[in-house]
Amino acid sequence: MLSAHAPSDRGGSGSDDIAADQDRFRAALTDTIEQFLQEQRDVLGAISDESLPLLSSIATLTSGGKRMRALLCYWGWRAAGGSPVAAAPVIAGTALEFFQAAALIHDDVIDRSDTRRGRPSVHRQFSGRHLAAGWHLDAERFGVSAAILAGDLCLAFSEELFTASYADAPGTTARTIFNRMRTEVMAGQYLDLLEEAVGPDQTPVVAEGRALNILRFKSAKYSMERPLMLGGALAGADRDLLEAYSAFALPLGEAFQLRDDVLGVFGDPDVTGKPAGDDLREGKRTFLIARALGSGGSPDRMNALLGDPDLDADAVAELRASIIASGALAQTESLIEQKSAEAFDALMLLPADETSREALHRLAEAAVTRSA
Amino acid sequence: MLSAHAPSDRGGSGSDDIAADQDRFRAALTDTIEQFLQEQRDVLGAISDESLPLLSSIATLTSGGKRMRALLCYWGWRAAGGSPVAAAPVIAGTALEFFQAAALIHDDVIDRSDTRRGRPSVHRQFSGRHLAAGWHLDAERFGVSAAILAGDLCLAFSEELFTASYADAPGTTARTIFNRMRTEVMAGQYLDLLEEAVGPDQTPVVAEGRALNILRFKSAKYSMERPLMLGGALAGADRDLLEAYSAFALPLGEAFQLRDDVLGVFGDPDVTGKPAGDDLREGKRTFLIARALGSGGSPDRMNALLGDPDLDADAVAELRASIIASGALAQTESLIEQKSAEAFDALMLLPADETSREALHRLAEAAVTRSA
Repeated sequence: MLSAHAPSDRGGSGSDDIAADQDRFRAALTDTIEQFLQEQRDVLGAISDESLPLLSSIATLTSGGKRMRALLCYWGWRAAGGSPVAAAPVIAGTALEFFQAAALIHDDVIDRSDTRRGRPSVHRQFSGRHLAAGWHLDAERFGVSAAILAGDLCLAFSEELFTASYADAPGTTARTIFNRMRTEVMAGQYLDLLEEAVGPDQTPVVAEGRALNILRFKSAKYSMERPLMLGGALAGADRDLLEAYSAFALPLGEAFQLRDDVLGVFGDPDVTGKPAGDDLREGKRTFLIARALGSGGSPDRMNALLGDPDLDADAVAELRASIIASGALAQTESLIEQKSAEAFDALMLLPADETSREALHRLAEAAVTRSA
Repeated sequence: MLSAHAPSDRGGSGSDDIAADQDRFRAALTDTIEQFLQEQRDVLGAISDESLPLLSSIATLTSGGKRMRALLCYWGWRAAGGSPVAAAPVIAGTALEFFQAAALIHDDVIDRSDTRRGRPSVHRQFSGRHLAAGWHLDAERFGVSAAILAGDLCLAFSEELFTASYADAPGTTARTIFNRMRTEVMAGQYLDLLEEAVGPDQTPVVAEGRALNILRFKSAKYSMERPLMLGGALAGADRDLLEAYSAFALPLGEAFQLRDDVLGVFGDPDVTGKPAGDDLREGKRTFLIARALGSGGSPDRMNALLGDPDLDADAVAELRASIIASGALAQTESLIEQKSAEAFDALMLLPADETSREALHRLAEAAVTRSA
C-alpha cells in the first residue's frame, strides 16, 4: 500500500513562499510517483519479469511534464484551507499525472504520433523492442497492441492512486469530480475524432460550436477546472467554493486551449519544439480554423490543404495568410482575452487566502501568455 | 449517484433455491447495468448527443454474456455470510461486467476480431458508422480509435461502479483485490502478445511454462479467483477464508482455461459457435500447443501451419492429428482432471454454508465439463 510522501514542512508560507511550496509539492509528487512505480515493479515482477516493459513505458511519461494539473489540484486544496504539507493532494496529483500519461499513450496510438516529448512514443518503444529482438509477426501491430495495454494499465494505476488519496476522509465529492472528468475527456476525444471525420461537411456555425464544445470538454475542464475542483473537494470545499473555482478555471482552460490552437498554427518551431504549422498538417478543426473557414475567403482551397501531411512551407504560409486575412486570428485572440478577463475577474472574487490566490494568478498568467 | 437494485427478497434460501437466488441476482445485475447506462446517457448527452454511440457500443457488450464473474462474486459474498439480498455484490458484479466489456473491446482491437457474440465488434461498429455516413479519412482507423476510447470509458465506468460497491463499508481488501486483478489481466495479456511474437524461438519447456503463466494471470485469476475473493472481501471475509477461496478457484480457473484451449482446437463448431480449429488459425501458443511441439513429431511442420489465417480443413485435421499423436491432448485432459480434482477437494474444505458450497460446485462443474 502506498504511503505517500507529504511535502516536508520547512516552515513559512507567506505569498513569497509560493515557489518554495510548489517546489516542495513537485518533489513530493516525484517521490510518490517513484515509490508507486517501485511497488508496481514488485507486483509485475511477481507475474513475470517480461511484463516489466509495460511499467518502464509508463515511467517515460510520468517522469516529466509541467505537472500543471497536479499543481492546480494542490492550489485547489490550499485555497480550500488544506494544509501546505499533506499527503492527499500529492496522491491525487499523482493520480492526475498517471491519468494524463494514460491519455497520452492512447492519444499517440490514435494520432499515430511517433514521438512524445522528444522520445519515441509508447507504441514506438514497443515496436522498436520487437524489431530489435527480431520477433515474429508485425512489429507495428505489436507496438500498438502493447501500447493499448500499457495505457489501460496506466488508467488502472491512476484509479488505484486516486482512491488512496481519500483513504482517510470521505471522498464522495472528489470521486464524483474524478469520474466526471474521465468521462468528459473520453467523450471529448471521441467528438474530436468525429470532427476530423465529418470534416468539411458542415456549416461554419455548426463547426465553430463543435470546436468550442470539444475544447471545453477535452481540454478546459480536464486540464484546469477539474484538477482545481478535485483538490478543493479533497479539502472539504463546499458547493459554493467549488462553483467559484469553476468560474475561474473553466474560462481559463478555454483561453489556455485557444492559445494552444493559435500556437499550433502560428507558433515558432524553435520555441514550441514542433514543426511550423503542425496542426495544419494534422488537419485539426479548431475554433480558429472553423472561424477562418466561415469568414469568406476561399474555404474550398483551405479545405483542400488542411490535413495534407505533406504540406510544404509555402502552403503553410498560404494558410496562415488566409487565416489572418479572414480575421479569424484577431477574433480568436480577442476571445482569448475575453476568456482570460473572465477568469481573472472570477479569481478576484474567489474567497481564498492571499497566497493561494496569488499562486493561481501566476499559474493563470503562465497558461494564457505562453509562447510554447 | 447509483442506487443499486438489490435482489428482491422472495423468501427461502435452502439449497434448492440456488437457481432462484441466481436468477434474482442476475435480474438485479441487469437492472443495475441498465440504470447505470441510463445515468451515463444523461452525462454524455449533456456533453453532446454525438458522443452517445460510445455508450451504445458499450451496451452491446454489457447486455449479454454468462455473468460468470458476477455470479462468482455473488457466491463469494454469500459464502462469507453476506445476505442473499444485498446491493454490494450486485454493484461489484456490475463493475466486473463493465471491466470485462472494456477488456473485450480492446481485445478485439488487438486481435482484429470483426465479430463478438455474433455481432460486429466495437471497432467494426464504429467503422461501419463511418462508412455508412460517408465521412472523410480512413473508416478503419476511425473505428479503431473510437474503440480505444470506448474501452477506456468502459474501464472508467467499471471503476466508478466498483467504488460505489463499498460506499457503505470499508473496502480496503476488496479494493486491493480489484487493483491486483486489473494489473494481472493487463500484464497477462501483454505476455500473451509477447508469446505470439516470440513464437517458435524458444525451447518447449520454456514455452510450456510461459503458457501456464499466461493462463494463470490472464484467465484463471481474472475469471475465477479474483471475482470470488472480491465478493468475500466485500462481506468481510478474513485472510484464511480468502485463501480457502483461492485454493478452490485458482485451479478451477486453470482447468477452465485449459478446457477452453482444447475446445479452441477440437471443439465442434455447431456447439462453440466458432469455426473449427479457430485457435490454430490464430496461432495461439497455449499449453496444449507447447506440449505438442515439445513431444517429438514434426514441430517444424506444425510451426509452419500454426497462425496461418487461411488454414483449410485438411490442414486443421493434420494439426489435430499431430496434437493427438504427440500425446499432448491426453496430457492436457489429464491436467484438467488434476486441476479440477484439486479445486473440488478444496471446495469440500471450504468453511461455508451448504447452499454456497453447492452453488459453487455447480458453477465449477459447468466450467470444466462444458463443450462450448
